[in-house]
Amino acid sequence: MSSAPIAPLAISLGDPAGIGPEVVAKCWDHRSAFNLPVFVAVGDGRSLSAIWDGPIVTIDDPRDADSAFDVGLPLLHIPSGAADIPGRPSVAGAHCSLDSLELAVGLARSGSASAVVTGPVSKQQLYAIGFSHPGQTEFVAERCGIASENVAMMLAGPSLRTVPVTTHVPLGEVAERLTPALIEARGRAVMRGLQRNFGIAEPRLAVAGLNPHAGEGGSLGREEIELIQPAIEALRAEGWQVVGPLPADTMFHEAARSRYDAALCMYHDQALIPLKALHFEQGVNVTLGLPIIRTAPDHGTAFDIAGEDRADPRAMAAAIRMAASCAAYRAVPG
Amino acid sequence: MSSAPIAPLAISLGDPAGIGPEVVAKCWDHRSAFNLPVFVAVGDGRSLSAIWDGPIVTIDDPRDADSAFDVGLPLLHIPSGAADIPGRPSVAGAHCSLDSLELAVGLARSGSASAVVTGPVSKQQLYAIGFSHPGQTEFVAERCGIASENVAMMLAGPSLRTVPVTTHVPLGEVAERLTPALIEARGRAVMRGLQRNFGIAEPRLAVAGLNPHAGEGGSLGREEIELIQPAIEALRAEGWQVVGPLPADTMFHEAARSRYDAALCMYHDQALIPLKALHFEQGVNVTLGLPIIRTAPDHGTAFDIAGEDRADPRAMAAAIRMAASCAAYRAVPG
Repeated sequence: MSSAPIAPLAISLGDPAGIGPEVVAKCWDHRSAFNLPVFVAVGDGRSLSAIWDGPIVTIDDPRDADSAFDVGLPLLHIPSGAADIPGRPSVAGAHCSLDSLELAVGLARSGSASAVVTGPVSKQQLYAIGFSHPGQTEFVAERCGIASENVAMMLAGPSLRTVPVTTHVPLGEVAERLTPALIEARGRAVMRGLQRNFGIAEPRLAVAGLNPHAGEGGSLGREEIELIQPAIEALRAEGWQVVGPLPADTMFHEAARSRYDAALCMYHDQALIPLKALHFEQGVNVTLGLPIIRTAPDHGTAFDIAGEDRADPRAMAAAIRMAASCAAYRAVPG
Repeated sequence: MSSAPIAPLAISLGDPAGIGPEVVAKCWDHRSAFNLPVFVAVGDGRSLSAIWDGPIVTIDDPRDADSAFDVGLPLLHIPSGAADIPGRPSVAGAHCSLDSLELAVGLARSGSASAVVTGPVSKQQLYAIGFSHPGQTEFVAERCGIASENVAMMLAGPSLRTVPVTTHVPLGEVAERLTPALIEARGRAVMRGLQRNFGIAEPRLAVAGLNPHAGEGGSLGREEIELIQPAIEALRAEGWQVVGPLPADTMFHEAARSRYDAALCMYHDQALIPLKALHFEQGVNVTLGLPIIRTAPDHGTAFDIAGEDRADPRAMAAAIRMAASCAAYRAVPG
């Protein structure tokens, strides 16, 4: 018997002036110690050679990544007009980061890559070239034909997974952005994602309240009663195991975390404060609700340290391992 | 040479139907293992004997606590009409908890107690008897003649101290409650408290932003620019070491925590999520800005488990130790 070879992971390098190329190169350097599967970098090779003197194997077909991987870092080269200066973002670099993302997603959609890992981009640079999505997550969702409310951005660490219902929204506007339909859609995406990407047959969801003490019966806010509770009941009616709304401050200690597989949070910092307090170096961003697998390290371009050989590759390594793990679960008929 | 004896700590038992009496009794049981100083309980002795068969020494004068402490739990008995039924809060119990608090605070104000540790009360029960303060902290402040904006509620654990600027406010109203004057007043109370109660001569304060990514230069909210930054500048002008506004999600990991002595947070859960995620059993509530020392364990009445011998006394023990530590710093002329 023979099985079809597993397609490699495709890693977009992100902004060529950021730390994306450096952390990907370091991941190839430490591929054994980090226990990483075969991957192919997607981006401008000059952004790699500007900060790394390791071997690069430029390939045209992702199927060649497997044989190339022991020799050097496999690269699908996207030539760009970007100057190869770390820390100096440019319009050409923004175009390159977008082209890299687009190609990596296309490879995953066609099955030529088993998953996509996205390096950090600069939203400010992307906005300057007309990018109209809030972030890479929404772009990837659109390219996959999925409405953005049906995807969920999970932050996953060794002992905690959190998903924010709203993301880059001023805190004072969070309450008005929340609707039962949005909370429900995100919750459903999380539960299906836990099944498909994490192999958890009967996932357990904990839903946070919005207000202190989860509103304390309405005296500290009514969103729990009017918005969150109806969404929880709708999810339960579909058969999902859901608890909440829980006071957010008492749901992230060790004993509490052991009682759920993911925490659905109402806003950005409610999800990211506990995740980063507990798992700062190991947080992985996983997009749930897509037909493809997409992960990303939970850090930005860090232009201020780009090119100084100071970037820590562990978050990228964690993102690569998680993408491979999710791809393995997906490959098993559920 | 002889020195004046140190006055005992006064511990109000809180609501007699809650777990306050149980955790105080357990603290006396384990006074050696927990390394606790002499303390006197203030409340209705029946709430102790209902759940504990250890020795109680009823005293009339706090100065007798020292000699009584080895024999039994010293008690300043406040007779109440409350039925001695754990888990069944009552109006009489609410009156008893308020009388206990009042006496304990009075002892500290007069110097008969070196500090106050307050057991958990039920706000709902207190509101039912006409209590008009948001919580015990504001009541204690008023009894000490301090305006509530000039006190600060610190949550302190072994590796993190946080202080919320706003507390029991619906999330959607936090932004409108914030003013530069309030942020500045809280920040000043924190810094003076770090000096007076924690013996930190040159305290360092980290101030969190309100919005995701601390507003990202104004694109995700302008409170950082319009409210928080001016407060920081005012504090710096007084000579305090202050950094911020910092993105809240990246200021609570280990390396970040090592760079400040306290984090000033804009709302309840921003302060309590990281504190309880990291130090769930050890969080102590310390009120800064008072002429007296007041600490409290960071948990509630837990009526649901009262009387079942399941309450964990470690938070109360931590509150007692911290009160003693603060009292020792206060005793040293600064």
